[in-house]
Amino acid sequence: MSSWIEDPAFATDRPFGPQTLPYGVLDGLGVAVRVGDHALPLRPMAAAFGELSGLVAADTLDPLLAAGRPTWSALRARLRELVTATTAPEGAVIVPLSDVRPVLPFTVGDYVDFYSSRDHAENVGKMFRPDGEPLLPNWTHLPVGYHGRAGTVVVSGTDIVRPHGQRKGPNDPAPVFGPSTRLDIEAELGFVCGGPVAGRVSTSAAAEHIFGVTAVNDWSARDIQAWEYVPLGPFLGKSFATSVGAWITPLEAFAAARIPVPDPGHPRQEYLVEDQPWGLDVSLTVEWNGTVVSRPVFSGMAFSCAQQLAHMTVNGATVRPGDLFASGTISGPEKHQRGSFLELCWGGKEPITLDDGSERTFLQDGDTVVITATAPGPEGSVVGLSEVAGTVLAAN
Amino acid sequence: MSSWIEDPAFATDRPFGPQTLPYGVLDGLGVAVRVGDHALPLRPMAAAFGELSGLVAADTLDPLLAAGRPTWSALRARLRELVTATTAPEGAVIVPLSDVRPVLPFTVGDYVDFYSSRDHAENVGKMFRPDGEPLLPNWTHLPVGYHGRAGTVVVSGTDIVRPHGQRKGPNDPAPVFGPSTRLDIEAELGFVCGGPVAGRVSTSAAAEHIFGVTAVNDWSARDIQAWEYVPLGPFLGKSFATSVGAWITPLEAFAAARIPVPDPGHPRQEYLVEDQPWGLDVSLTVEWNGTVVSRPVFSGMAFSCAQQLAHMTVNGATVRPGDLFASGTISGPEKHQRGSFLELCWGGKEPITLDDGSERTFLQDGDTVVITATAPGPEGSVVGLSEVAGTVLAAN
Repeated sequence: MSSWIEDPAFATDRPFGPQTLPYGVLDGLGVAVRVGDHALPLRPMAAAFGELSGLVAADTLDPLLAAGRPTWSALRARLRELVTATTAPEGAVIVPLSDVRPVLPFTVGDYVDFYSSRDHAENVGKMFRPDGEPLLPNWTHLPVGYHGRAGTVVVSGTDIVRPHGQRKGPNDPAPVFGPSTRLDIEAELGFVCGGPVAGRVSTSAAAEHIFGVTAVNDWSARDIQAWEYVPLGPFLGKSFATSVGAWITPLEAFAAARIPVPDPGHPRQEYLVEDQPWGLDVSLTVEWNGTVVSRPVFSGMAFSCAQQLAHMTVNGATVRPGDLFASGTISGPEKHQRGSFLELCWGGKEPITLDDGSERTFLQDGDTVVITATAPGPEGSVVGLSEVAGTVLAAN
Repeated sequence: MSSWIEDPAFATDRPFGPQTLPYGVLDGLGVAVRVGDHALPLRPMAAAFGELSGLVAADTLDPLLAAGRPTWSALRARLRELVTATTAPEGAVIVPLSDVRPVLPFTVGDYVDFYSSRDHAENVGKMFRPDGEPLLPNWTHLPVGYHGRAGTVVVSGTDIVRPHGQRKGPNDPAPVFGPSTRLDIEAELGFVCGGPVAGRVSTSAAAEHIFGVTAVNDWSARDIQAWEYVPLGPFLGKSFATSVGAWITPLEAFAAARIPVPDPGHPRQEYLVEDQPWGLDVSLTVEWNGTVVSRPVFSGMAFSCAQQLAHMTVNGATVRPGDLFASGTISGPEKHQRGSFLELCWGGKEPITLDDGSERTFLQDGDTVVITATAPGPEGSVVGLSEVAGTVLAAN
């Protein structure tokens, strides 16, 4: 007995089967769900959602994000029924992904970027601060993070224009201005917040305020960043663009992927202790012009999304629907697990060879980067995160 | 021949005379203008604004911010006519400020905080990095800044709850968690952006994208900040609250206050060169429980609002209506010109005596801080910035 959705990619052993059901927004069509290699716009079949019809008939995910956990669970349960039924709900049509244009699916409130991979922090520390300890004393005690620019969060597929900025190499007598010569990526996961506006969200309340997960590419101009970042942190080296996936995978889809975070080797502050594991067994793939250059694993991240959210609000700061926080670059201990090109080419010293024989250190104009990710789903299935793709355009 | 507005404070030698006309939003009444010690709600007299009536009848300043410079100028000119006329426009009523409740007047997009007072940067550098050069090499070349939390920008009068957080003193074996013991202020000016969404705003286009100016108190927990801020900058030490004035003074009101910024002592990058001066001759006053403890002057700031906006967007980052950027703490060379208590009490070593005889280093629960500011207006008048007030409540 099979679903009315006739798409071989809509299967439990494929990333976007009925175990995943990520939400997105399509230009001109509104809220939709990804089913295999198709999109299912919800507005034409809104009547099938009863009292939730207003949420699925909306132009963006904003009303759904504000609705909160009980509504998210009820909607997902109803969706599961509808997409696994043998007959289509009235009005339902599926559209090949190649025929739709996803847009940024929600209004980004505040955007925070963490720094919770120990291997990444150590690698960057060695390169940016060669004379000091790579890991600073605070790093194991709290999820170090900073606010990024919400207004330049863009949806996967948006071209990335090479940014201009100031840089100063160790041998430059004065800073120079021009297009970045060290344009890089950062492969991360992003967590989309919702529910009522709240301050101080405990780790045990994480699921009330985390709606879903997306892959993130936190594009970074390393030359601009290195010159500007002391003492107040990254600013123009990051603020030109941050790409997120077009489809947000609901947090509930990761139930089978949850694992404990590594032990920090010392007692945790009480507000960072978890009563259930919120680490995630997610595997990422980074493709550079079609060549897989890295396979970062999220399982080694030192702080979970629940810990990051608890930390971010422990001072009383509110979290609002649409707030987005990212994990930080995901790098593992092995070279092929590094989540930035800065680390992969070790600051430019060890070029990477692509399948076409060309060599790369940082991004060239015309280069395309695609980040994908999957996690174990229930009963041996696989849960997908929507790809994050971007192509570099020449500075203008 | 005098105005129909019978308020002695509505005079050119007072901060909120017809030369100022700042915009705010009142709970239940919508957009209003401050006239002396009264508020003038615009909705009841919206018909007098012709095709601009929709903007002034709105619930927030958001539509006005989006409208752009030609509309801002047209609206201000019409307002001037109406408030200086001898008879009141139909429907117009003025309400004492004591009878209205201002709310945050616009939706904050991205919030950026700069660091453009040399004296402040040097003072903080000496205290936070005693073993290094107080001013880092990039500081004179670009306006150092970082993104803050837009979701916790609050209007003047909002109580400030003392934040919890991690801190670690030099003699603590491990970080401790609790209410901040070094709660501080930062006296700043904030610039409210509007006009069409744009990337790369040149210094000469500043007035197209800066709607107005407000005083800002960037509340800061120094103990949390000192432990967390390396290497990615301030985060929880700042994100619990940032207060802005209830009334936004239009940029045009500062025409007589514009002065050149100090020469940096080396050539500027071309994108930071100004074809007209955008420094501002603004004088601030900081009151602590009614005692004036500081009189910072804005005239010495090393980068202007036009330079800050040009820098913030030179990498292609967009500026949107509602974006807010602040100058950075305003400190002068004299002790009585320092814009933070950290500097005034030199890290706690030199207590400040208030008029009641009590001594302070950092803020105590129940303390109230009020920041006010004025600038020279046209023809010997004075232009006011609305006060920014806040009272500290005990941690909860």
